[in-house]
Amino acid sequence: MPGREETICAPATAYGGAVSMIRISGRDALKIVDRVFYPADKNSVTAGRKGYSIVYGEIRDGGEVIDEVLVSLFRAPHSYTGEDTAEISCHGSSYIISRILDLLIRNGAASARPGEFTQRAFLNGKMDLSQAEAVADLVASSSKSAHRIAINQLRGGFSDEISKLRAEFLQFASLIELELDFGEEDVEFADRNQLLALIGQTKALTDRLSASFRMGNAIKNGIPVAIVGKPNSGKSTLLNFLLNEEKAIVTDIPGTTRDSIEDTVNINGLIYRFIDTAGLRDTSDVVEGMGIRKTLAIIARASVVMMVDESGERSSDINKRADEIRKMINDPECRFIILVNKADEASPSRINRLAREIRTEIDENLLFISAKYGTGIDKLKDYLSEITGANYFSGEDVIISNIRHYEALQNISGCIGRIITGLESKLPEDLIAIDIRHAIHYLGEITGEITTDEILGNIFKNFCIGK
Amino acid sequence: MPGREETICAPATAYGGAVSMIRISGRDALKIVDRVFYPADKNSVTAGRKGYSIVYGEIRDGGEVIDEVLVSLFRAPHSYTGEDTAEISCHGSSYIISRILDLLIRNGAASARPGEFTQRAFLNGKMDLSQAEAVADLVASSSKSAHRIAINQLRGGFSDEISKLRAEFLQFASLIELELDFGEEDVEFADRNQLLALIGQTKALTDRLSASFRMGNAIKNGIPVAIVGKPNSGKSTLLNFLLNEEKAIVTDIPGTTRDSIEDTVNINGLIYRFIDTAGLRDTSDVVEGMGIRKTLAIIARASVVMMVDESGERSSDINKRADEIRKMINDPECRFIILVNKADEASPSRINRLAREIRTEIDENLLFISAKYGTGIDKLKDYLSEITGANYFSGEDVIISNIRHYEALQNISGCIGRIITGLESKLPEDLIAIDIRHAIHYLGEITGEITTDEILGNIFKNFCIGK
Repeated sequence: MPGREETICAPATAYGGAVSMIRISGRDALKIVDRVFYPADKNSVTAGRKGYSIVYGEIRDGGEVIDEVLVSLFRAPHSYTGEDTAEISCHGSSYIISRILDLLIRNGAASARPGEFTQRAFLNGKMDLSQAEAVADLVASSSKSAHRIAINQLRGGFSDEISKLRAEFLQFASLIELELDFGEEDVEFADRNQLLALIGQTKALTDRLSASFRMGNAIKNGIPVAIVGKPNSGKSTLLNFLLNEEKAIVTDIPGTTRDSIEDTVNINGLIYRFIDTAGLRDTSDVVEGMGIRKTLAIIARASVVMMVDESGERSSDINKRADEIRKMINDPECRFIILVNKADEASPSRINRLAREIRTEIDENLLFISAKYGTGIDKLKDYLSEITGANYFSGEDVIISNIRHYEALQNISGCIGRIITGLESKLPEDLIAIDIRHAIHYLGEITGEITTDEILGNIFKNFCIGK
Repeated sequence: MPGREETICAPATAYGGAVSMIRISGRDALKIVDRVFYPADKNSVTAGRKGYSIVYGEIRDGGEVIDEVLVSLFRAPHSYTGEDTAEISCHGSSYIISRILDLLIRNGAASARPGEFTQRAFLNGKMDLSQAEAVADLVASSSKSAHRIAINQLRGGFSDEISKLRAEFLQFASLIELELDFGEEDVEFADRNQLLALIGQTKALTDRLSASFRMGNAIKNGIPVAIVGKPNSGKSTLLNFLLNEEKAIVTDIPGTTRDSIEDTVNINGLIYRFIDTAGLRDTSDVVEGMGIRKTLAIIARASVVMMVDESGERSSDINKRADEIRKMINDPECRFIILVNKADEASPSRINRLAREIRTEIDENLLFISAKYGTGIDKLKDYLSEITGANYFSGEDVIISNIRHYEALQNISGCIGRIITGLESKLPEDLIAIDIRHAIHYLGEITGEITTDEILGNIFKNFCIGK
């Protein structure tokens, strides 16, 4: 998806509101608007008007008035894309939107592809690639933490650091290549200690960013929490309780759909993705093999496994079931919680006995709750926040949530490892130079200083139209 | 729903796009924006900036950056509402929108009610009531003709004429009341001939507008076309053929749903609402009475009745069925079409014989079609357009599509009739004055010069929020 010369247009707002906005950007944007827009003050759009100004008037198709609109003008390079841009605010009728788009296209504009406005902003140097990617994340953000990560990244994030490191590597690369030019003369232009310091710095940054990816990815997609346990232990009552509290906040936002076995809940600004394995366990005697395999797969990608059991059960049975589940957990970072539900139905002495008799291992927790009355749910929420980092996520740390960045960072780590080994074992300069060049390449991939059409295509195809 | 003093805010665009816009309007709009918006050029929003200008900067909640936004400024009275207004264009994330709204509300704004921005525009004299109503119609318009009616009404439509007539009636009312003050002195300040001329003028306008209501209402809600006929005659094939052509145009617009027995199709810029009575006829032997009654009700509100029959049927049977349906049609303006489907399966000589033998009455039509191959469908469409007026709807005529206006016009007609009778039979001035005052009242109701909270409440409750 290489850049193209055409002036492009697309609706930038969703269909269905009171107001809609159509964006047109490119060399001929204002000229095309001039052909279809009749300002109330009779002056043309282009003549004499400054950028960052608004004009009221009519969009007309020949003699026919299509709508009364406001046109916001932006002049290159002071616009989102860096090109001449106009934003037409019209009444939010799908008929009007399609008429205006049709009119713009008949007057020389092309339909914008997904993400093409942001791609142009990137190609025109208005933002680097990681910032462009943050735009899509920001539009998609639905929790405090996902929003925080995206806005930090949009405002520069780690781009500056990466760019600075890359510039220094470039400097070393050229010095080492100079050494190679001198062939057998055994000169050293590149200071090996400075190179080692740079490598140390780079390693610290890439390690820190890579480590943040697990958290970042979980924040972006929801922290996976597997819910396991015998049928009728109250798993769905618990889930509904968590969901209903949440729904009070999000009801007025249309378009949020719920999967029957996966539900996301916002707890203290983090999105948790609860995956109920109930359906699987219920039918486990019928399709035992498949049920277990699916449960194992869900547990394998979970950050937290929550076993829901009942206060009416014997502690020996609960311990047996907990052991079964422990066997399924492989990831040492995955946390296990035993929830004893229906605590309201048990006497205090029974609760005390269960608390003594139910075993927990290190880093595990046991909570008594009543999903029906909401008892203990706040404790559960606090505990989830605590173990998954909401409490120590300051929001100022830079966190990686993008798999593309993570992969580039892994590649940079590999290069750095090889450079260190190479320097230690006094490998020939030309071999070290290759790894330095690779490191430079991968650093550049993050910010977009190095891109291919394929990378750009992959990034922008997931954008919505109009962005 | 009386007007209130608060500064109000609401999202004006639908959720889900790349960009969203939040509107804030009222005395403190710019002051409130000042508290949460940090322009990139460091100047405050209110100080020194003109209306119709755009400012780039950040929305912040304390130290936290919520989004990078554009703020469009409008200063009273030069705004949509006539008040100070700001429009905040932010990234289209529901999280960001809710954060910004929350922030505005915490800083002194109130949540806008449905239609409250347009209501303020009306209360501040930016538009009359019929124009305010046109805003909602314009947003809802989904066809060329519905759009045409709404935009004509928004741009003044019949408001000027109505206002002028009302002013003249007011003049007469005061003159006649002056006569009443002089009691028995038998003076005539109000020229009876001028009054009769005014009444003639008013009658011409109200008759013309009332007559347009049937068309206007049909355009707004779709022209009702009843489809009747025996099962398996190809009714649904025909409907699907019409719908599929249409769907190629509207697929990219979400939110359009299809009822199983009512489908709307855009033909030459008019929306037709096809109501299939198939399901009713199929079960007619089971619940005969109810089936017939429902069919009768559908036919009663149809502008066109289309009987679908087959080329394989005997002409005597087709004539018999057509007669049955004719008996159900009461409205003399309702048009009847006989469609002989599966014309592709009959020989030309058979078609010729059917064409001779199937009877049609005046204003009826007989068409041979093949719903399977689309033969004759263009002819059907042209015929529908012809009989329902698309071809002679110039778009410049003022058309009433609003039931509230129609009722007011009917009331005005009543007053005028009584005034004419009163003048002819030389009724006392005080009785005539009452009818004149009523006419003034109903004329004022259309444009909103006379309103009650109830009228306003009814009108604006159907608006969307943010408009």
